[in-house]
Amino acid sequence: MKVLDADVHESFASIKDLAPYLPEPYRGWIAGGAWRGFSQPFAYTSPGLGNRADVRSNDGSASVSDYGLMRDQLLDAYDLSHAVLTGYFYPTGLKLQYGFATALAAAYNDYVAEHWLAKDPRFIGSVQVNARDPEAAAREIDRMAAHPQVRQVLLPVVDDIAYGHPVYRPIFEAADRNRLMVAFHHTTFAQGPYGMGLHYMERHALLPLAMMPQVISLIANGVFDAYPNLRFMILEGGFSWLPHVMWRLDREYRQGRVEVPWIKKLPSQHCRERLRLSTQPTEDISGDQWMKLIDLMGTDDVLVFSTDYPHFDFDDPNAAIPRVLPESTREKILWKNAAEFYGVSDDPRSERSLEAAE
Amino acid sequence: MKVLDADVHESFASIKDLAPYLPEPYRGWIAGGAWRGFSQPFAYTSPGLGNRADVRSNDGSASVSDYGLMRDQLLDAYDLSHAVLTGYFYPTGLKLQYGFATALAAAYNDYVAEHWLAKDPRFIGSVQVNARDPEAAAREIDRMAAHPQVRQVLLPVVDDIAYGHPVYRPIFEAADRNRLMVAFHHTTFAQGPYGMGLHYMERHALLPLAMMPQVISLIANGVFDAYPNLRFMILEGGFSWLPHVMWRLDREYRQGRVEVPWIKKLPSQHCRERLRLSTQPTEDISGDQWMKLIDLMGTDDVLVFSTDYPHFDFDDPNAAIPRVLPESTREKILWKNAAEFYGVSDDPRSERSLEAAE
Repeated sequence: MKVLDADVHESFASIKDLAPYLPEPYRGWIAGGAWRGFSQPFAYTSPGLGNRADVRSNDGSASVSDYGLMRDQLLDAYDLSHAVLTGYFYPTGLKLQYGFATALAAAYNDYVAEHWLAKDPRFIGSVQVNARDPEAAAREIDRMAAHPQVRQVLLPVVDDIAYGHPVYRPIFEAADRNRLMVAFHHTTFAQGPYGMGLHYMERHALLPLAMMPQVISLIANGVFDAYPNLRFMILEGGFSWLPHVMWRLDREYRQGRVEVPWIKKLPSQHCRERLRLSTQPTEDISGDQWMKLIDLMGTDDVLVFSTDYPHFDFDDPNAAIPRVLPESTREKILWKNAAEFYGVSDDPRSERSLEAAE
Repeated sequence: MKVLDADVHESFASIKDLAPYLPEPYRGWIAGGAWRGFSQPFAYTSPGLGNRADVRSNDGSASVSDYGLMRDQLLDAYDLSHAVLTGYFYPTGLKLQYGFATALAAAYNDYVAEHWLAKDPRFIGSVQVNARDPEAAAREIDRMAAHPQVRQVLLPVVDDIAYGHPVYRPIFEAADRNRLMVAFHHTTFAQGPYGMGLHYMERHALLPLAMMPQVISLIANGVFDAYPNLRFMILEGGFSWLPHVMWRLDREYRQGRVEVPWIKKLPSQHCRERLRLSTQPTEDISGDQWMKLIDLMGTDDVLVFSTDYPHFDFDDPNAAIPRVLPESTREKILWKNAAEFYGVSDDPRSERSLEAAE
């Protein structure tokens, strides 16, 4: 069965790897140590720290800055048809000077194009942006959309942005005019309504609570209706909450739609048609529970498989989706739903859009 | 079929109704207008504003300060065995001077005892506290626990408190030593990780996101394990999210329990045994979806019916729980689960604990 991995985290070895792609004065700021990169605001306690214990780059570090390592451990090991690069460096989360954050996003996109996308046609790329400056983000989307492997804008979920707010419309406009999809992934700064909690267990259980409000915000503020061709991917944000959020939104809509007349469909219909959610981290539930959950979602079109490579809670495509699920459903989750979302065929080398790049 | 309503909102006509129960200087502050009461930070758009359109007290206001109105519209109209008074005035949310907020909570408790609990043995009472001063809250719990109708401490869900944090332990200690239950209800200040949203639909869809973190916080920080006799009630916070939260917590626990060794049971087991969730506002789902959802919860012990009287989105006990559910499950939701939680029999007048009060 073919597998498309919707959430793979490439990285750099050091923030200084971005210096060649930065204009002055930012290049000098990085080179001189005026800013030393970001640090996550909590400690990972797993043996490999945040990553799988077997992830070691050529330089001995635990970062995944080495394409060859990812090829061997992921793309070839699991015979993936495609892997979607989603990054780990999200300037939006940093509250840096806006111009600097925007320049870092562009530098990172250029770094990824050269060091990752160019090396393997199985990679699907994301445009990283500084979402705090939506007009600048839109310009970066226009710039990167020309790259044939880029298929989505990556909107990082941070501590203070619900993307349905009208100020972010230029980003969706840009995604729409460039026929890109929009994906959401949490950053290390995402949190619940009361912060990150006091233990890793608490913090990690709170991450879906930063994602549900994005769906609520996008639908309540009419983003689904304003851009009917856009589709939205929730990455690593949980998925078993979808029935609750759909039912709650439907109820609120039926009861209060006079206040939100721009919403033209039941929110659950919007979600089933245009929202997709990646499966990692899968929860420890039985095949029967998977089937009941999918039944409550009302469709098996919304789930897409992901490994979250190289993180310590990696999901193995051979084990994560129970084999007792109907074969057609497993095929949709492991490949077909994502392939349709990203508009890819099963042989990357045959794709017209990629021929231009080769 | 007997019905116990787990969430009923009594009120006062004016904040000045509390003046007789306040010591100086607070009585003078209220009488003189130094503080004019609270105002919700958003507007209700329904015809009755926040309440049912048919709720009018004797003074013509839309507040429920009139026991007779509630008796006629709720207790007698639906032949309730009991109704749990949960208030609408929550000093914890107000960020007033701590002593003033604590005095207001005590005054409100005395107001409710005289104007509500004393008038009908079908009422079950809640202790209101200023949770921002946990030691003072504990003293108020000790004071009110002697009242025979009081069965629970009401912890208001505000914008900045996750109750598993160790500073709130004195409140749980006090509930435990007085054999009270602990209930959580949102206030007008509750919000999601990115605020309240821009429309009522968004705000109301976000309320469960202020409740899920309470469950996560209580379990991750060991409150369930530290007080094995305490049980916890989630009021008006949604319920269809429970499978997601249980599964996610189980996964995080299995993966990271080395960091939280005080947790002695799978979180889902803790929830099934000791967490209860009220059903209003029910979502618009079919009987089949109710059954699948209950199956995914792993028990029909956790749901308890509530009307949320007098609010505009009132759930009718004759309609809210579909009749296609097994009769034993409907009986549990409408009465038995809550009766066991609150330790009440089906005839309030026969209860030993109430004899002392009569």
